[in-house]
Amino acid sequence: MSAEQRKVAVLGGGSFGTVIANIMAEKGIQVAQWMRNKDRADEINQQHTNSRYLPDYPLSPALTATTDIESAVVGAELVFVAIPSQSFRSVVHQIKHIVTEQQCVISTTKGIEGETFSLMSQILKDELPQANVGVLSGPNLAKEVAQHQLTATVIASNHEPLRAAVQDALQQSYFRVYASSDTYGVELGGTLKNIYAIAAGLSAALGMGENTKSMLLTRSLAEMSRFAVSMGANPMTFLGLAGVGDLIVTCMSPLSRNYRVGFALGSGISLDEAVKSLGEVAEGVNTIRIIKEKADEMDIYMPLVAGLYEIVFNGAHVKEVAKALMTSEQSTDVEFVLPRTTV
Amino acid sequence: MSAEQRKVAVLGGGSFGTVIANIMAEKGIQVAQWMRNKDRADEINQQHTNSRYLPDYPLSPALTATTDIESAVVGAELVFVAIPSQSFRSVVHQIKHIVTEQQCVISTTKGIEGETFSLMSQILKDELPQANVGVLSGPNLAKEVAQHQLTATVIASNHEPLRAAVQDALQQSYFRVYASSDTYGVELGGTLKNIYAIAAGLSAALGMGENTKSMLLTRSLAEMSRFAVSMGANPMTFLGLAGVGDLIVTCMSPLSRNYRVGFALGSGISLDEAVKSLGEVAEGVNTIRIIKEKADEMDIYMPLVAGLYEIVFNGAHVKEVAKALMTSEQSTDVEFVLPRTTV
Repeated sequence: MSAEQRKVAVLGGGSFGTVIANIMAEKGIQVAQWMRNKDRADEINQQHTNSRYLPDYPLSPALTATTDIESAVVGAELVFVAIPSQSFRSVVHQIKHIVTEQQCVISTTKGIEGETFSLMSQILKDELPQANVGVLSGPNLAKEVAQHQLTATVIASNHEPLRAAVQDALQQSYFRVYASSDTYGVELGGTLKNIYAIAAGLSAALGMGENTKSMLLTRSLAEMSRFAVSMGANPMTFLGLAGVGDLIVTCMSPLSRNYRVGFALGSGISLDEAVKSLGEVAEGVNTIRIIKEKADEMDIYMPLVAGLYEIVFNGAHVKEVAKALMTSEQSTDVEFVLPRTTV
Repeated sequence: MSAEQRKVAVLGGGSFGTVIANIMAEKGIQVAQWMRNKDRADEINQQHTNSRYLPDYPLSPALTATTDIESAVVGAELVFVAIPSQSFRSVVHQIKHIVTEQQCVISTTKGIEGETFSLMSQILKDELPQANVGVLSGPNLAKEVAQHQLTATVIASNHEPLRAAVQDALQQSYFRVYASSDTYGVELGGTLKNIYAIAAGLSAALGMGENTKSMLLTRSLAEMSRFAVSMGANPMTFLGLAGVGDLIVTCMSPLSRNYRVGFALGSGISLDEAVKSLGEVAEGVNTIRIIKEKADEMDIYMPLVAGLYEIVFNGAHVKEVAKALMTSEQSTDVEFVLPRTTV
């Protein structure tokens, strides 16, 4: 299909939704970007900017915004859902009776629905059982994509035509789309990394060196992949962009909320004070609670999550927790190479 | 065996040899550290310092240095070889007729012997077929270990008692030893990373952002693990300390020689000038040449190595090479999840 005949929808008026909508519009694909806020939609249509989320980023005049979700979705070959996790299910529920089995619906949202322990792709499958489902995730700071910094992402789906269609729709000279069949692994990478960004902030506050940072990142990967495997994902996915790639960006970026919460805790500030000074709860704090509960329930060994839980919620001292971790039994480097029970 | 009865040898008077010798001596293990330089051995024995390699690091008075390799090795349960790759074979050759089949010999050296394409563990097996062989590798800056920064490393061997003995001998409150059975994978991680540190320096010189750095690291891992698998290693090893762990430390450290060569090349300086200003050839430059040759011979797809080869040896322009890489066919994220032939 030539670019001109293709029609896609992007749900959400935030920064990531806007950059992917714009990439496709620039390529001549017909893009309808849905958002609730009428003023923002008008600004995109008239001024070709989204000043709230991407100041100084000129949008393609061909990109159209709308507040009518039905008109955006009907006839769209691909529907990208870039909606915060708290409103994800309710927005998807609105298109339940519109989406057909010819359509592909792709989540770009990271997070877990607390009550049901559902990832966004599972919400899509719950609400839209007729559709083909995929997940887009990777080390993708929206403002860097807007600046045309070279960026790579992953489209994960078990539906091959969906993967090919997304690779084709989004490829740009500055944007590369790699494919994966491990939807759950790709999605868990993007979600779990927020926990370990808190740990990275903590270790930075304590002045830890390169050896320690690297150990922390590697043991974080060991724990993330162990958890993901127990949920049916492929551990090898953590070698990729949505695993180690996204983890590195998140843990190395001192501006992320999760890193800042960790840094504050490591500086002796309480969680309440840290949250107050940030003005909102970092996603990773909630994720620690949800994952700790699930890990306990399923008996998955996650010493970093357990240690962070003690520090964040029970006021345990960072140095004591670190000492306990360092002096516990020495194990294997990668348990998928040498199982943990053997030495 | 109690610490007091154990006897180990460390061959080499450099920084890493000295820190591991000292860790063991502090624990009450009888350590003989061999080196060629008599003045340095005298300094270690009399002043308990190694001022050439680790200024300001007080050594245990129990650590003894010697210039007699035979006395160091005879009766040692573990023999650590911390000798630069150029002299590795000749030193090991000297102990060929001393080492018994009860002894374990562990390389801590990273590198490839150019003429034979041998890793250090292969040289150990060639020269000492009677011994049990292992490799110690990981994100371990010696000066940080000396400062007691929390550090983790990997002991890799297919001989379980060797792994257990090394874990026991080296564990400290600030030093953790994880085990692996994939000797070749662990060793290749430490060797190949030098190539990608040059790429990291190049991208930093071009002012690339977080998305790009992360893409580069992840695609480097994809290439390293692809190469390693073709040499019989386990790709999962690259999820561990000696893979991604060591890669991160090397690529994030602007002080490493490889990074600095890359940075110079990215700033428009020629290889000759870059080498002249550094005073020596960075290991990664030679590794690019050796790996490019092997990859061509074995038909292994390594676009980053091929691109770096063109930049380093044929004066190709970095931006052109980056553009070609970005616009080539989009592939799979992790080929061990979804093979590269499928999309």
